[in-house]
Amino acid sequence: MEDTDPVDTRTYPAEHLRDFTRRVFEHFQLSEEDASLAAGVLSRSDLRGIDSHGVARLITYYDMLAAGRINPRPKIRTLRESASTATLDGDNGLGLVVGPRANQTAIHKANFAGTGWVSVCNTNHYGIAGYYVLEALKQDIIGWSMTNTTSLVAPLWGAERMLGTNPLAIGFPGNEEPDIVIDMATCAAAYGKIEIATRLGEAIPNGWAIDAEGRETDDAGAMIEGGALLPLGSRREQGGHKGYCLAVMVDVLSGVLSGANWGPFAPPFALQQKIPERSVGKGIGHFFGAMKIDSFVDPDEFKSRIDEYVRTLRGTKPAPGSDGPLLPGDPEREAEVIRAAQGIPLVMPVVEDLRKISRETGFALE
Amino acid sequence: MEDTDPVDTRTYPAEHLRDFTRRVFEHFQLSEEDASLAAGVLSRSDLRGIDSHGVARLITYYDMLAAGRINPRPKIRTLRESASTATLDGDNGLGLVVGPRANQTAIHKANFAGTGWVSVCNTNHYGIAGYYVLEALKQDIIGWSMTNTTSLVAPLWGAERMLGTNPLAIGFPGNEEPDIVIDMATCAAAYGKIEIATRLGEAIPNGWAIDAEGRETDDAGAMIEGGALLPLGSRREQGGHKGYCLAVMVDVLSGVLSGANWGPFAPPFALQQKIPERSVGKGIGHFFGAMKIDSFVDPDEFKSRIDEYVRTLRGTKPAPGSDGPLLPGDPEREAEVIRAAQGIPLVMPVVEDLRKISRETGFALE
Repeated sequence: MEDTDPVDTRTYPAEHLRDFTRRVFEHFQLSEEDASLAAGVLSRSDLRGIDSHGVARLITYYDMLAAGRINPRPKIRTLRESASTATLDGDNGLGLVVGPRANQTAIHKANFAGTGWVSVCNTNHYGIAGYYVLEALKQDIIGWSMTNTTSLVAPLWGAERMLGTNPLAIGFPGNEEPDIVIDMATCAAAYGKIEIATRLGEAIPNGWAIDAEGRETDDAGAMIEGGALLPLGSRREQGGHKGYCLAVMVDVLSGVLSGANWGPFAPPFALQQKIPERSVGKGIGHFFGAMKIDSFVDPDEFKSRIDEYVRTLRGTKPAPGSDGPLLPGDPEREAEVIRAAQGIPLVMPVVEDLRKISRETGFALE
Repeated sequence: MEDTDPVDTRTYPAEHLRDFTRRVFEHFQLSEEDASLAAGVLSRSDLRGIDSHGVARLITYYDMLAAGRINPRPKIRTLRESASTATLDGDNGLGLVVGPRANQTAIHKANFAGTGWVSVCNTNHYGIAGYYVLEALKQDIIGWSMTNTTSLVAPLWGAERMLGTNPLAIGFPGNEEPDIVIDMATCAAAYGKIEIATRLGEAIPNGWAIDAEGRETDDAGAMIEGGALLPLGSRREQGGHKGYCLAVMVDVLSGVLSGANWGPFAPPFALQQKIPERSVGKGIGHFFGAMKIDSFVDPDEFKSRIDEYVRTLRGTKPAPGSDGPLLPGDPEREAEVIRAAQGIPLVMPVVEDLRKISRETGFALE
């Protein structure tokens, strides 16, 4: 990857970053088990090439823990449950701890009732949605994962931020072919892409964002300074109402159902972001689903069908100038092979953040 | 509605059309109960203003039943089940019968296990996805509904039809405010809009379709003659990979999980459409979910939260030149109020189809 990347980077073995991250979390009195769990979520993101959600975010978790805004020793409580459901209160723990535990509850329920569905309030940013699905896949379970997030996205025909980027993930296991792993935000483009455009001084494509007046803009700065992202589909004509609907779906299942904050009231992820004046619940919310495949069909049969599905889609006639469709999860899987072997390339601002943490905690980075 | 509609229409009371439809289904030896159920699905679509999926499609069901392609007396079989799941074989019944029955199974499971999830194979076109969600809402259940359909949509970077328009619906009940009802196809624009553009000789907007070579086109005819619809998001830059992922998700849950046909192998809805050369399962597939609200939270509390959610989104600052965001389900709810009072306006080609059925069956239309 470094060959084609003009940006100055430094590469670390994934193990090394994972170990550093674990020790940093332990520094804040997380249990060894919880610190390992949390470090594993960030590491998986780096391995899968989702740089924005990996160790690059450690500084933010670090700041929030240092400021006492996140509880390092949460006691997760069950607010209500049934054979196939639970509503959990994450006790303001790290989302990287509350998320994996709630996901395990969903998987546990699925093992008894066929499926498990868990809505969680009073939690914080949980990393990549796809992590939870990958965990479920290890057990022949179709995993679902959603979370609401700080508001950045305007509803179609709105002129302000009212919804998060609210990602949705789901995975289906293959046998000879790779698993299908879907992990997508419900807005047209990621906020990270807006930040990159600002840094490079480049115009952003049509359909990504509006300015503070609610007009479509190609100026990344205008989005950042009081504008908003547009939902997937961007405009009415191209289906922007559908992306807006998906963001609402994720918000209601994660936030409203659990008793978390939702919409414009979701608290921020980072220390420097403004806290909404009104609170309508506790923390942010997640939603996990687990569907045990053999509750529906023989798992080997299902995986063979997925193999055939993958082969069929790979056989699609390519659009002109393209190599044909990818399968959901292809880019992340390819990144994982390369990065497991070659290490994780970090841009220098991230390296500087980690060095700062290293100085403050005394844990060696390299 | 007729005031602003330049198209010649004839208006019938909803009851009248529903009764006619029921008798037509009974004519093909459906039981009285099944015929009522099926007529109810089409009627609800007409009432909610989704003209494409209402009585306008009776001629297609009629043709398929007359040709013996649909089983009027299906014996729905349970292939596998657990406390919260079932896989059903619809015995090639009318989707308008198999769908409501499978949805009832999901609701029944939810009443015992907290949630119910049903994947169905060997079925046919089931009407509007939203119908099933509305049924669940009557019982304080968050309903999910999906179906795969005949392939019309290209994967991102593909040049041919590989996926259906694969709709997804979900609903959340309000108390003082209306329910939130999401019902959306996972492609950028409905095929019906392409047909209208052809009839009017108008260009179609960017991002809707490709031609037979896989190039984006504004020519509706080029899409119809061997081209394809584009997924929600249309292009990579605007998130077309996400719409493609959603279409795959619906297809796998409905088709692959149940043992139905999927992707390009999904059989057609109408008699004159080509049957795929290869079959990989039985009929098409649906997927229903039912989440009993009180398995997660007190239903009254949840509904109050939804009320607040609706009010908050209605309070969004409007984009310039708009009246501000709608809530998912607003247009359909408004149509229902008007049409329940004033009747269902049908365009003349639909009236002619119904008159033909009336002549052939002997049931009076007016």
